Amino acid sequence: MEQVLSPLAIAHQHVVFEEGLALDCGVHLPRLTVAYRTYGRLDAARANAVLVCHALTGDQYVAETHPLTGKPGWWEVLVGPGRAIDTERYFVISANVLGGCMGSSGPRSPRGEEGDGQALWGTDFPPITIRDMVRAQRRLIAHLGIERLFAVIGGSMGGMQVLEWAATYPDAVFAAIPIATAAHHSAQNIAFHEVGRQAIFADPDWQGGRYWQSGRTPARGLAVARMVAHITYLSEQALTRKFGRRVRAGSSVLGPYSDIFEVESYLQHQGSSFVHRFDANSYLAITRAMDYFDLAAEHNDDLASAFAGTKTRFCLVSFSSDWLFPTSESRALVRALNRAAANVSFVEIETDKGHDAFLLDEPDLARALSGFLAGCAEHARLA
Amino acid sequence: MEQVLSPLAIAHQHVVFEEGLALDCGVHLPRLTVAYRTYGRLDAARANAVLVCHALTGDQYVAETHPLTGKPGWWEVLVGPGRAIDTERYFVISANVLGGCMGSSGPRSPRGEEGDGQALWGTDFPPITIRDMVRAQRRLIAHLGIERLFAVIGGSMGGMQVLEWAATYPDAVFAAIPIATAAHHSAQNIAFHEVGRQAIFADPDWQGGRYWQSGRTPARGLAVARMVAHITYLSEQALTRKFGRRVRAGSSVLGPYSDIFEVESYLQHQGSSFVHRFDANSYLAITRAMDYFDLAAEHNDDLASAFAGTKTRFCLVSFSSDWLFPTSESRALVRALNRAAANVSFVEIETDKGHDAFLLDEPDLARALSGFLAGCAEHARLA
Repeated sequence: MEQVLSPLAIAHQHVVFEEGLALDCGVHLPRLTVAYRTYGRLDAARANAVLVCHALTGDQYVAETHPLTGKPGWWEVLVGPGRAIDTERYFVISANVLGGCMGSSGPRSPRGEEGDGQALWGTDFPPITIRDMVRAQRRLIAHLGIERLFAVIGGSMGGMQVLEWAATYPDAVFAAIPIATAAHHSAQNIAFHEVGRQAIFADPDWQGGRYWQSGRTPARGLAVARMVAHITYLSEQALTRKFGRRVRAGSSVLGPYSDIFEVESYLQHQGSSFVHRFDANSYLAITRAMDYFDLAAEHNDDLASAFAGTKTRFCLVSFSSDWLFPTSESRALVRALNRAAANVSFVEIETDKGHDAFLLDEPDLARALSGFLAGCAEHARLA
Repeated sequence: MEQVLSPLAIAHQHVVFEEGLALDCGVHLPRLTVAYRTYGRLDAARANAVLVCHALTGDQYVAETHPLTGKPGWWEVLVGPGRAIDTERYFVISANVLGGCMGSSGPRSPRGEEGDGQALWGTDFPPITIRDMVRAQRRLIAHLGIERLFAVIGGSMGGMQVLEWAATYPDAVFAAIPIATAAHHSAQNIAFHEVGRQAIFADPDWQGGRYWQSGRTPARGLAVARMVAHITYLSEQALTRKFGRRVRAGSSVLGPYSDIFEVESYLQHQGSSFVHRFDANSYLAITRAMDYFDLAAEHNDDLASAFAGTKTRFCLVSFSSDWLFPTSESRALVRALNRAAANVSFVEIETDKGHDAFLLDEPDLARALSGFLAGCAEHARLA
């Protein structure tokens, strides 16, 4: 187990919108907190802002040491001075999603109106959608004095947010880069998420979601959820290349019931290290939001109409070995964008690293991003 | 929850080998029980016996109503009078695997030498291998007065047993039909099994494997294990075709945290119905045996040498949408058999049903089996 700070001990940079937020489910969230980080400087024209949207278990600590884990930011390979998303040129913003557990309003944040610092939302936090997340980000952007984002970029669930940004606020997005994503979750994607949720529900320490009162959290259930999800982030080839059937040092096949294969201890580590930095109820809420997401359904079952008349420039990226959000999903989006006569380019990157490739040091991804952004900057007459 | 009989209340047809069995792990199992069923009649020459090997959660009830669940036998579509594996022509034998929970020696059977009917093996049952399972079946076959099997047939883990039969007792197998299987488990296969095991370990009712003493079984953990495994048995296309993103009647997106999508309630049903008929410790032991299986490693890392000089006729079958045991694994076996100059045919069946296809009413599979068996029967001069 890694030694990490208590999640609740950290003060995240944030802004509070006392007017709250009307959610898709019909509930009006009485008070909206958005935790965020920025990198680089907003130019005088307020035209160089790039919003980076994070994935299911990501957060706003994109390009700096993570305050809980002490590890590098999750996209430092791509975001920073001189990097593909160059913080010397762009003003990079990233917000913890609504429903998250790193300072934005979510199951782990206090129910403000009860005036009791100990009372947290837990599973009473209203169900949220990707569009709700985007609405919360929109508030943050306005708060920062920005009317139009130069670019919105994100992978996986971050890509869903990019699509939702482009569909909901087309005039506020000059360029959109949805990476390794889809217009909706497939039955298989939902099924894998459901296994994770059932693992959390099955943990008696989940206690109907009110675990914060007892001090015991459903760590074992959440770890199992993380383990199964992690398999879907990697390709079969990547697992074979990294671990194959190698047996752990000091371990032997036909020994007692313990982790024998390296891939087993790797997965167990993925599970146990995750539970220190993530909240089980946030995991439930955010996986739900991903499963609900259906951009076509939001537009009369016509994906193209989500982008009707759009002036946004799109660059879609997929990875050849990603079986969670396969290239076919990106192609379906490209076809819809073509039907909407949108300006769209598409790159499928050859890699055996699976869905996880969007988080890794993948030179082809860096080249695609920096090239597309440079081209857009020219069109936008960015300084 | 389905109403089923208590697993321990059933008397399974079985044979006891008091001399026990020497296992690969070095332990001598003091007493070996093999529960089995037969269908059809052994001919005078004792030459028409077909051994059907079951998969991870299968059992010996191949072609008759299951005594616990009341459902049809798991392979009634293929085994029976006039079926592809014709019980009017062949004498079909099926045994519960060593380590299983339907009457053969396994974690749920009594530790005989302690003379206490209540004391079960639990996790003290020694770790077993696919080869151990086959050795136990070999005892049964000898007990039935059979020297040579006309055919050994099985899918998934059943296919592993077929391969092991052909490699270990080549003279006892005239024809071998390994279906939807592989010479070893991949890192991804191990990873999915490990998630299931961790879900069982995480259930406090597992109680270190000694749950039979308390009357509480790790049903929730075992259900989660079944759910994740079940996803791997189906293709993404099959899940989309069967469920897509359909919402359950009476349910709505953005409602409370419950199963909203049909695929979720389907999976939950797969999990909850499974725990009534299966033992968690058996699940641990058998998944381990599958993960350990490595036919090349048993033969100096040379898969071809596992089949050196074999006279067995092989027919391998794979399914185009099976991603758990993909066609590439069958092709690797075919190449090894070719290097061993074996008599081998190979069929890849086009289907979107995934790994599960070997259990379903798949006409192409029935045709492949009956055709191959008929050809072999001619060569074997079967009456």
